[in-house]
Amino acid sequence: MANYLIVSGDGHAGPPPEVYREYLDPEFRERFDRHQEELAAGRMVDQGFVDEWDEETGDREMRAAYDSAVRDRVLDEEGVAAEVLFPDADVLGTGRTASSPFGSGLASGAGADPEAVRAGARAHNRWLADFVAESPTRRIGVAVVPITAGVEEAVAEIRWAAEHGLKGVMIPTRWFDAPAYLDPVYEPVWAALAEAGLVLHTHSGAGPADYGPGPGVVGIYAAEAWWWAARPFWVLLLSGVFERHPDLRYVIAENGAWWVPDIVARMDEKWLGGHTTRKFGDAFTRDLSMKPSEYVDRNCFFAASTPGVDEIERRHAIGVGNLIWGNDLPHPEGTYPHTRRWINERFRDVPEDEARRILGLNAAELYGLDLEALAPIVERIGMTPDEVHAPAGATEEV
Amino acid sequence: MANYLIVSGDGHAGPPPEVYREYLDPEFRERFDRHQEELAAGRMVDQGFVDEWDEETGDREMRAAYDSAVRDRVLDEEGVAAEVLFPDADVLGTGRTASSPFGSGLASGAGADPEAVRAGARAHNRWLADFVAESPTRRIGVAVVPITAGVEEAVAEIRWAAEHGLKGVMIPTRWFDAPAYLDPVYEPVWAALAEAGLVLHTHSGAGPADYGPGPGVVGIYAAEAWWWAARPFWVLLLSGVFERHPDLRYVIAENGAWWVPDIVARMDEKWLGGHTTRKFGDAFTRDLSMKPSEYVDRNCFFAASTPGVDEIERRHAIGVGNLIWGNDLPHPEGTYPHTRRWINERFRDVPEDEARRILGLNAAELYGLDLEALAPIVERIGMTPDEVHAPAGATEEV
Repeated sequence: MANYLIVSGDGHAGPPPEVYREYLDPEFRERFDRHQEELAAGRMVDQGFVDEWDEETGDREMRAAYDSAVRDRVLDEEGVAAEVLFPDADVLGTGRTASSPFGSGLASGAGADPEAVRAGARAHNRWLADFVAESPTRRIGVAVVPITAGVEEAVAEIRWAAEHGLKGVMIPTRWFDAPAYLDPVYEPVWAALAEAGLVLHTHSGAGPADYGPGPGVVGIYAAEAWWWAARPFWVLLLSGVFERHPDLRYVIAENGAWWVPDIVARMDEKWLGGHTTRKFGDAFTRDLSMKPSEYVDRNCFFAASTPGVDEIERRHAIGVGNLIWGNDLPHPEGTYPHTRRWINERFRDVPEDEARRILGLNAAELYGLDLEALAPIVERIGMTPDEVHAPAGATEEV
Repeated sequence: MANYLIVSGDGHAGPPPEVYREYLDPEFRERFDRHQEELAAGRMVDQGFVDEWDEETGDREMRAAYDSAVRDRVLDEEGVAAEVLFPDADVLGTGRTASSPFGSGLASGAGADPEAVRAGARAHNRWLADFVAESPTRRIGVAVVPITAGVEEAVAEIRWAAEHGLKGVMIPTRWFDAPAYLDPVYEPVWAALAEAGLVLHTHSGAGPADYGPGPGVVGIYAAEAWWWAARPFWVLLLSGVFERHPDLRYVIAENGAWWVPDIVARMDEKWLGGHTTRKFGDAFTRDLSMKPSEYVDRNCFFAASTPGVDEIERRHAIGVGNLIWGNDLPHPEGTYPHTRRWINERFRDVPEDEARRILGLNAAELYGLDLEALAPIVERIGMTPDEVHAPAGATEEV
């Protein structure tokens, strides 16, 4: 039996600040230095965690975040043939940063200066295009496009990304004070993405911002983060973006998928009409010719990195063809450096055809991967069906 | 077999503007007239819906919202012995209003003048205390307390409510620009509630405010409303309000409960610690001595009016002792005027001991109802076990 083609739908890459600096337009470099100093001053290091993490990964310099050879070697060890690359490979608590400049990465949208954010995004995208070019078969680059910092510039960046070998773009998770994503002002963005054939992404990122310090803040942040990250999903869907752009494909990354069946069922219920909705007239159907779940099926993907038991159990309700596994490399909340064990743990009882889709084939189709070029890599490093489906107890538990 | 004691955990009551005017402090009356004119100018009437609704209820003046005798007669017809009374008995689309003045009702918190909102709340609470006094065995009054418009005044209003026979208070669903509910500034509110033995409530209310018009707005609003209404639940819980006030009881009204098991499981998971949380240290446990689900069990109730199939199916995961039925009288999205049929539809296959808890006993315990005084009413108007559990097809479908 052939090895598994394993594609991570959620990886992070980015170089240290001194490298980013070189990729920035020169007029932003001094400002970048100041910004880095401010960030460093506010950073906390948890030395116990650093020591533990360094021992576990053996990568004290976090070279996996940006060193091409190290990255490919780590992928080999993990059994991963290819991966989607988002920004911000930082490992919080270690003081080691690989953040897309000026907050243009995962937290993009949060009140930064639009000009600086756009410059930071351009620097990251330039670096990423070079990094992808060093191992193009295995790397799926997602450009950072801060659409809330200017639509016209965003459209230009989307075209640049398409021309430079990147396969998708990530927009800010939250719009903050910018127009919400239902606003027609963003129509040129959706149109440019559809035209370029780039995949749209949001990734769990900036969370709640409407409270100050107080007891329980970290827990509240953690309890709410999924919702903020999921919000663009129904805003895009219900405002008809996928109605107007049937070919646009959209990935919600690192946000689980346990919530998908309930949320989609409720959208469908309203679209179908019924007792509780009769006072709303045609408000739920006038912008959508199909049921919400049909757009989900056609246009939406859930890169639920390190899926939990719930995602696996609910995979049919979520859509076996819409669920994408990921390892969140190199973040410690991901499965690195124990990905093979985690895959076995989660997928041992999943039928092989379904496991193959979630672990790799869905992503391969979505991003148009070169299966022929990947074949020898899969043969060399891919997990065997026996490894993926080894019974409980056959390997060390994670 | 004894009839069912049926208690609605979600009813709405309020008089027409001319009655509210009399309950307002005189210095606010002129301003109230102007505010009512502004509201009237922005109100839309859907005549087709009005005609249909009037025929269905036979209550063209919406007297059930405020006329004591009519209200009791409607409860009799519905088989409901007692009910919790929230504000805003308006029926949208008909032009008929019974709104707590100056937006102090369900949408409270949304940018109104604090002084006016407090005056409006006082007017509603005075009217409500009188309305409850006209049928005290059957009416459970929930005072409107806009804590985001002033903590000191809120504490005074809580004491007033307790002294005037009201059993609970409703705080704004959203804090908007005021401090979030984790902020220690609200501590006197929680302490006053616990001391007075009043039940804290939030009710689905003000929704998202961070987008303007655009396609899909109504659908997006409807898709998100549950989350805004649920948000105080985890903010209160995780910030330790129920840790500090073990006797404080909290009801989330008209917001379903389908979401409870997933949300609580995730809070528990973080409290218990584990792989994805290790970088957060003791952030999830330092304010909580028990697992989140233990506070839910002890302190939280879900008045999931007109429960759906999901709430019934998930009742054990939600907590049979924490789920409270309601009919949302007189809102058209509730079960009025067909409550008996709806109860049969949803509860026919639920074991009798569980159905009795959800339909009435949980609320009776929570609000300390006088069961002896209710007994003759239940005997006269309550549904029989045969009616509640009549097999499908035995009665007309709803």
